[in-house]
Amino acid sequence: MKAEIIAIGSEMLTPFRQDTNSLYVTEKLNTLGVVVAFKTIVGDRRKDLEGAIRTALGRVDVLVIMGGLGPTEDDLTREAVGEALGLELHREDALIEALKQRAKSWAMPMPENNLKQADVLEGALVLPNPNGSAVGQWLDTTYESFRKLVMLLPGPPHECKPLFDAECLPRLKRALPSYTMAKRTLRVAMLPESQADKLLAPIYQEYEDVETTILAHSGDIQLTVQCVKADADEAGERVDELASRLEEALGDWLYSSDGESLEQIVLYYLGLRQVTLATAESCTGGMVAARITDVPGASRSFLGGAVVYTNALKTAFADVPAELIAAHGAVSAEVTKALAEGIRKRTGATLGLAVTGFAGPGGGTETQPVGLVYVALADGQKTEVFDRNFRGDRLRVREWASQMALDLVRRRLM
Amino acid sequence: MKAEIIAIGSEMLTPFRQDTNSLYVTEKLNTLGVVVAFKTIVGDRRKDLEGAIRTALGRVDVLVIMGGLGPTEDDLTREAVGEALGLELHREDALIEALKQRAKSWAMPMPENNLKQADVLEGALVLPNPNGSAVGQWLDTTYESFRKLVMLLPGPPHECKPLFDAECLPRLKRALPSYTMAKRTLRVAMLPESQADKLLAPIYQEYEDVETTILAHSGDIQLTVQCVKADADEAGERVDELASRLEEALGDWLYSSDGESLEQIVLYYLGLRQVTLATAESCTGGMVAARITDVPGASRSFLGGAVVYTNALKTAFADVPAELIAAHGAVSAEVTKALAEGIRKRTGATLGLAVTGFAGPGGGTETQPVGLVYVALADGQKTEVFDRNFRGDRLRVREWASQMALDLVRRRLM
Repeated sequence: MKAEIIAIGSEMLTPFRQDTNSLYVTEKLNTLGVVVAFKTIVGDRRKDLEGAIRTALGRVDVLVIMGGLGPTEDDLTREAVGEALGLELHREDALIEALKQRAKSWAMPMPENNLKQADVLEGALVLPNPNGSAVGQWLDTTYESFRKLVMLLPGPPHECKPLFDAECLPRLKRALPSYTMAKRTLRVAMLPESQADKLLAPIYQEYEDVETTILAHSGDIQLTVQCVKADADEAGERVDELASRLEEALGDWLYSSDGESLEQIVLYYLGLRQVTLATAESCTGGMVAARITDVPGASRSFLGGAVVYTNALKTAFADVPAELIAAHGAVSAEVTKALAEGIRKRTGATLGLAVTGFAGPGGGTETQPVGLVYVALADGQKTEVFDRNFRGDRLRVREWASQMALDLVRRRLM
Repeated sequence: MKAEIIAIGSEMLTPFRQDTNSLYVTEKLNTLGVVVAFKTIVGDRRKDLEGAIRTALGRVDVLVIMGGLGPTEDDLTREAVGEALGLELHREDALIEALKQRAKSWAMPMPENNLKQADVLEGALVLPNPNGSAVGQWLDTTYESFRKLVMLLPGPPHECKPLFDAECLPRLKRALPSYTMAKRTLRVAMLPESQADKLLAPIYQEYEDVETTILAHSGDIQLTVQCVKADADEAGERVDELASRLEEALGDWLYSSDGESLEQIVLYYLGLRQVTLATAESCTGGMVAARITDVPGASRSFLGGAVVYTNALKTAFADVPAELIAAHGAVSAEVTKALAEGIRKRTGATLGLAVTGFAGPGGGTETQPVGLVYVALADGQKTEVFDRNFRGDRLRVREWASQMALDLVRRRLM
């Protein structure tokens, strides 16, 4: 069963505003086994709107239309849906009365054009809106002899969402064959996307009834595996089977089988092993600490650390000898190792984590290019150091570097 | 001139991910007087994709297609555009060579399916992509005897945006009738959105030919003032006139008249006054330092600092007396003041900045609720301390707190 969400409003076609209702509605539709196949954002022009609705009627079974139900000249959804489906509008007395009452209770005059909010499509069910003056409408109708479920919802999120939940979801549930969606999210660190796909595609392609989505960002991959079936157990089994095979193929690249973030996993293992962590960051400038402390309860395992942007602070906060920096440079395996060991000792943490590197755009040399990053982890017994060359701009290098640092802790503890 | 932006990728039809490239591309298209009339988000199904492209070709003149240019089986944009426009694909030798070189330089094997990234549409111009393996394509073509400008761009934002700027914008400018957009972005810290709008609406509503947009996020307001005219000077004058009046009304809430971020402004003033800064962060856990070090060249004025998540580290890295913490609590004016003074002394910075607070969800008390934040700034002569109660979840409180801390430095220096 395929759906399209149409969000109406010229403000969502500017550089500043995005439709957000659709994320909410998508989540709810998915639970009924309805897949959102298209989202369309269209402005207040009547012809554009009509065309978008016709296009949607031609390609999906469920059509959720949000916005354009207000009282102004720009609010044309009712008219456009009527035109596209060949349905008349009639002005409903009960709704006129309600609009008048509403204006009266707010002690506001009601302009004549407000009455267009009482226009109802032929055959539509009126959906009450406790949070605004624009009612919704529900149509169970046909278009070119196919059955179509069409919902008209108000645009403001605090009106749209409760109305969808209260009025549309139960009706959809009754109208649609019963399906259930099973879903798992696997997460993977530091594996390049192309390599991940090469490794995993031969596996997930065997499962035509399961949808696998790969989402990659700066060293983090999110793999979503989902399956919709009439039989909930069957859907769950298919997802679990594929997820297990993907997990096996991923080996220790996998850090989470249930969608948790890398920093959540790191904190989970720190708690489990009852150890503490401190950080000394140069090129990431606090990003690693900020990510860790984003998780509620981080203070149970994370002590804090230092942002050592200058050589002097590397010495002052982590006892890195000035001569060591002079001999090897601030961005070097030796200094990063000393930073990890130093911050560990100075904070009394079980584990000391350090990052140095050239984030760019300036600062690199021929032998030490922009994008070179060192991370080190000290536990009092041994100190591991790794280096990588990352591509991309300053932000990307810093994101990859913080990911690499957190993943090093994860691998040590897991 | 009407445009449609098509964002391709099933992940953008989930509840988790939204297309963001389109906001950027919309902004750039608007500068050329091109209005975005539709945005469509479509998944990786070949038939859906082809249909969406045909629909767009039927209703707009400029078509920006983003995503689906990678090497995987799901990357079907080239094929779908070819099908919709009736154009053949051919595999280009120079691109094959470049892909092989790229794989070699990364010392990675190149899977055979990577070669589909060398497929070019008949009549298309190849647009080089310095940030990834997928090149873009530019088509100046016809569909049902109308001229259509069609651009294929890679989906990852760090590839899409620079490629659009470098390769598409100049070509669009040459191909389209000349309009100019004048624009100014004013930025404001710590002023609530409703107050800003109450203050500014009576002014900007006088300018019907100038579009003013207010965008607020965690203590940061971005005011965009823009005007499109055939005459560039006229557009510029209108924007400057309105911007000046808004600036006057905003007074010292305004921190930037040209779109710079708060951290850029702080670094600018640190450089101008030739002073240095160090930070000691508790509840923000490194966010303030991470924001500052996000700006290239931050090391000229920012020394670093400490993330002092525990009481012991407040003492170890900023010499806050343990008795002071015991007497007043870690989240208090006294401790925050001592932190600012301590970090200043320990790092040798001209200015010491400190933040403490309860970010939640746990940790607050009746007198000290979640959302309570202290910031302090020490310069060796005096130390200012301020407190605020922020609403919202952990992330929001941390964002507001880091904004408040940076704004304190800005106000001191400006």
